[in-house]
Amino acid sequence: MAASSNEKDRPVVGFIGTGVMGGSMAGHLIDAGYSLNVYNRTASKCEPLVKKGAKLHSSPGEAAAASDIVITIVGFPKDVEQVYLEPGGIVERAKPGSLLIDMTTSSPELAVRIYDAARSKGLGTCDAPVTGGDRGAREATLSILVGGTDEDFNRALPLFETMGKNIVHFGPAGFGQRAKLANQIIIAGTMLGMCEGLAYAKKSGIDTQRLYDCIVSGSAGSWSFTNYTPRILKEDFNPGFFVKHFVKDMRLASQSSQEAGLSLKGLETALEQYIELENEGYAENGTQSLYKLYCKD
Amino acid sequence: MAASSNEKDRPVVGFIGTGVMGGSMAGHLIDAGYSLNVYNRTASKCEPLVKKGAKLHSSPGEAAAASDIVITIVGFPKDVEQVYLEPGGIVERAKPGSLLIDMTTSSPELAVRIYDAARSKGLGTCDAPVTGGDRGAREATLSILVGGTDEDFNRALPLFETMGKNIVHFGPAGFGQRAKLANQIIIAGTMLGMCEGLAYAKKSGIDTQRLYDCIVSGSAGSWSFTNYTPRILKEDFNPGFFVKHFVKDMRLASQSSQEAGLSLKGLETALEQYIELENEGYAENGTQSLYKLYCKD
Repeated sequence: MAASSNEKDRPVVGFIGTGVMGGSMAGHLIDAGYSLNVYNRTASKCEPLVKKGAKLHSSPGEAAAASDIVITIVGFPKDVEQVYLEPGGIVERAKPGSLLIDMTTSSPELAVRIYDAARSKGLGTCDAPVTGGDRGAREATLSILVGGTDEDFNRALPLFETMGKNIVHFGPAGFGQRAKLANQIIIAGTMLGMCEGLAYAKKSGIDTQRLYDCIVSGSAGSWSFTNYTPRILKEDFNPGFFVKHFVKDMRLASQSSQEAGLSLKGLETALEQYIELENEGYAENGTQSLYKLYCKD
Repeated sequence: MAASSNEKDRPVVGFIGTGVMGGSMAGHLIDAGYSLNVYNRTASKCEPLVKKGAKLHSSPGEAAAASDIVITIVGFPKDVEQVYLEPGGIVERAKPGSLLIDMTTSSPELAVRIYDAARSKGLGTCDAPVTGGDRGAREATLSILVGGTDEDFNRALPLFETMGKNIVHFGPAGFGQRAKLANQIIIAGTMLGMCEGLAYAKKSGIDTQRLYDCIVSGSAGSWSFTNYTPRILKEDFNPGFFVKHFVKDMRLASQSSQEAGLSLKGLETALEQYIELENEGYAENGTQSLYKLYCKD
């Protein structure tokens, strides 16, 4: 436990994935006094953390081998599967007794597979996706939706408390992902309604700024409407939340809801529309760009 | 102007449709000192207003003939068409120079037809649907979305101010209806996402109360989520807003959006789901009962 010699009671933390979200979250852990072993596919994104004292590693497995608790927040389920389950990956190389926490929004089924693989090696796991976006990550106000055993949750809690405000344990492995997917299904319908309503107003000759001012506090109001409609009205389609990531989340939700015996027509419609939006070149834009599918001019 | 002899400068108001919404709204006008001529298909619903001094009439046309300004808030576009345009109806019997205000959520195209018919007889019109529900009607906090000429809007404004707080003039005849339909399209997606997300959570074994508490203030939050999810969690499917009325609004929105050259897949999906809900016997329930389409047990 080289990196933690000066912090006797604190676990050393491996942090895999130091992008927009992970970079801020890892920074809070350093600020709270944790020693960090970091890895990112694009190593340059670790630089700010290395300047603050984190040790850079050349693979997720290597960072895990040097740590007591490993946190991952990477892009897609295939990345999660790779960093945990491939030969030389986290599960293979983590020290006995380590705790592995995946904060990527990923598949409930994969969270259970990682839990099973980890348990057979004497490792604990949590699935702990977040909501609150880059701002929540920066300001340490994330909501963290957690699946795992009580023991693993309690062990992870002090770390979660440095990164978020609203930390909820939903059940065993996979339940953090399920709660997060429920959240994304709700947002899918909300974004769809918002973009279609604005498009209808625009095409109907309604002053959309006036409409926004009139109805934002009423029964059509939502977090999405408050936060995204002003951007749409300014033709600002830069990403707060990437279309490609939302499509990923909706695909996961679609699969998981079908496994639960549900046919969620609204979700499927939103997913189809966002895939069409991706096909029109908006994958790297923000989710509010769905409006452009209806109002191209 | 018999009924107004004691209120020299105030127009006499005909009020057609004194149900849950109209009853409260008409009451505010009486409280503000207006003399009212009232009509309702079920005459007994006029009783509270008659006790406060309103004069009961036996037809919309008769109430209109005795008034300077006529307000209607009835159920469906076919009712609007009937009370205004049928022989012996409001347009035929209104006094020259009268102002006709329809506050039903109805068709933009019908609002323009009524405007045209009225103008040819020297009458003014506004289309002025509301949002805010029975509570907004009771507390005089409705939002009122208005279409009409500037002159007609300004003439109606003092009456609107006795019934609502947030009164916005969106443009000429039909534009109040268009703004309201945009509002309903936004709500359609929001309700769809909310009910599907809750159903997924429930079927996945997530504690839905815990989920609500965790995410209601976050990016999945909305007026609908705040107000309807607690009712769903208590299995309270009583109407705040009737399924049958929401289906009517979405049909209007679907028609109007197609006329505007739009194909709103989310709206069409929400409409299909709510029609299915109607077919399962929920027409007289509240819109939150969409949840039951996914979670029947």
